[in-house]
Amino acid sequence: MEVIIHEVGLRDGLQMESQQVPTITKVQWAEKLVEAGIDVIQLGSFVNPKILPQMADTDELFEEMKSKKTSNVRFSALILNEKGFERALKADADLICMGVSASETHSKKNTGMTIAEALERIINIAKEAMKLGKDIQVSVQSAFGCGYEGDIPEERVYKIVERYFAEGINKVSLADTSGYAFPTKVERMFQTLQKMNPNAEFAAHFHNTYGLGIVNSYIAMQNGVKYIETAFGGLGGCPFTKQPAGNVCTEDFVNMLQKMGLRNDINIGKIVSVTKYACGFFVKDLPGYLYKTWREQ
Amino acid sequence: MEVIIHEVGLRDGLQMESQQVPTITKVQWAEKLVEAGIDVIQLGSFVNPKILPQMADTDELFEEMKSKKTSNVRFSALILNEKGFERALKADADLICMGVSASETHSKKNTGMTIAEALERIINIAKEAMKLGKDIQVSVQSAFGCGYEGDIPEERVYKIVERYFAEGINKVSLADTSGYAFPTKVERMFQTLQKMNPNAEFAAHFHNTYGLGIVNSYIAMQNGVKYIETAFGGLGGCPFTKQPAGNVCTEDFVNMLQKMGLRNDINIGKIVSVTKYACGFFVKDLPGYLYKTWREQ
Repeated sequence: MEVIIHEVGLRDGLQMESQQVPTITKVQWAEKLVEAGIDVIQLGSFVNPKILPQMADTDELFEEMKSKKTSNVRFSALILNEKGFERALKADADLICMGVSASETHSKKNTGMTIAEALERIINIAKEAMKLGKDIQVSVQSAFGCGYEGDIPEERVYKIVERYFAEGINKVSLADTSGYAFPTKVERMFQTLQKMNPNAEFAAHFHNTYGLGIVNSYIAMQNGVKYIETAFGGLGGCPFTKQPAGNVCTEDFVNMLQKMGLRNDINIGKIVSVTKYACGFFVKDLPGYLYKTWREQ
Repeated sequence: MEVIIHEVGLRDGLQMESQQVPTITKVQWAEKLVEAGIDVIQLGSFVNPKILPQMADTDELFEEMKSKKTSNVRFSALILNEKGFERALKADADLICMGVSASETHSKKNTGMTIAEALERIINIAKEAMKLGKDIQVSVQSAFGCGYEGDIPEERVYKIVERYFAEGINKVSLADTSGYAFPTKVERMFQTLQKMNPNAEFAAHFHNTYGLGIVNSYIAMQNGVKYIETAFGGLGGCPFTKQPAGNVCTEDFVNMLQKMGLRNDINIGKIVSVTKYACGFFVKDLPGYLYKTWREQ
């Protein structure tokens, strides 16, 4: 099994926290994550700073991190629209992530657009990005269910992904925004998508609303998903969903991988140090397990 | 996949709590668990009340619950030695659980005996129980690693189980006392045991020290393990291990099963009510996820 860690704590983690993290602190955390040997680090999102002030300094953070790329790490960013895309281009993000929700309610709340509107806009941006030679990843959010709408028909998710594939977009992420995913569904959905396009690369992003983030991530891996999105300490959640809950905890997930003989190149201690720093910063425990018993080795 | 829930919160959950739960409260919790439709409920252990005062009333609890067996539920008890066995017989426990540790250090701390000594004693008790027609389950604790000793050779676990099989004991549990298990190891070990004895029935008991309890339980199920041991709210841990951590949370696990179309006969709301009661009783949050967002339905 090949697995690539896409660390989203600085984006999906911090956007849920009311306390803003200063850019200098984000830089320190990002540096440690680079040192840890994480593959892809999402530095932030390029979104409206009035709506998400926690992400207002993403441009600056990209600028700061340019000189600190000491490994093969790639920096990703999330965008919602054309304006964000322009900022991501200017920041020279290595991977630009964008997507639509499979839930009309979540789509409206998150972007102000219907699914159909969002899909056309995202596809246009994605095509433009590909023309410019940029690496992109498109997602379907609320792909496994929605806190507002409940079950989401799988067929709706497949149709969105079919449109991506038809446009030549082959890196697709399914995001479980509300934590509704469960093992047999994860298995079935990724198997279906793989049959639709055996050449596609898949990513998975699970939330721990019901405690199933790690099992879902493992089942995704078993079913050919290469990119697993996680957040240090298990921080996070989408602020525009019902009952937000943390991401899969990066160091807990990597610890499991290393026990299985995978990704021994990643330095877990460095990730744990970010989690511990974040606990101190927010003055609270984070949901992760490993850091609670970690001793420097 | 067939799965039987063995609820151990009243034993493995409560033994970690310094605050003693009055018998009357235990009865209320046990009654709710019966109403929930749980298959097997461990009411407590028959151990030295001076060492584990939380379990001092197990005899009384069995007596109290006799008249409250309104379903096909079975009540189990854990014993460590002959004295506990006598009490379990007197209490007429439906399933008597006993075992040895695969870690010498853990064995000494938990029972005062070496593995070899404990094994002979447990086998003698098990044989005596079978002669009396009692249903028993034997376990290997610290089967996946030990907080004191680190890795435990798998061969040592297989040898212990081989002795069980040789004596005609066919219901075997592997317990991950320290939370060291991980998916590929769970898979390999249960597959090996199944090859050793295709007629055996297996149980699995995982702790969440590193957040892997649910994924390990699911992988165990996938590999033919029928009995999964869980605790309401994710309470628990062995007081005689290093870095104890909670059990797999019953309602979180059953919630996952129900999403997969399994065990829809279990009433999750009743389990959640026990967890909420326990949170109130201990005046703290428990590690489980589901109860935190649960609304009466």
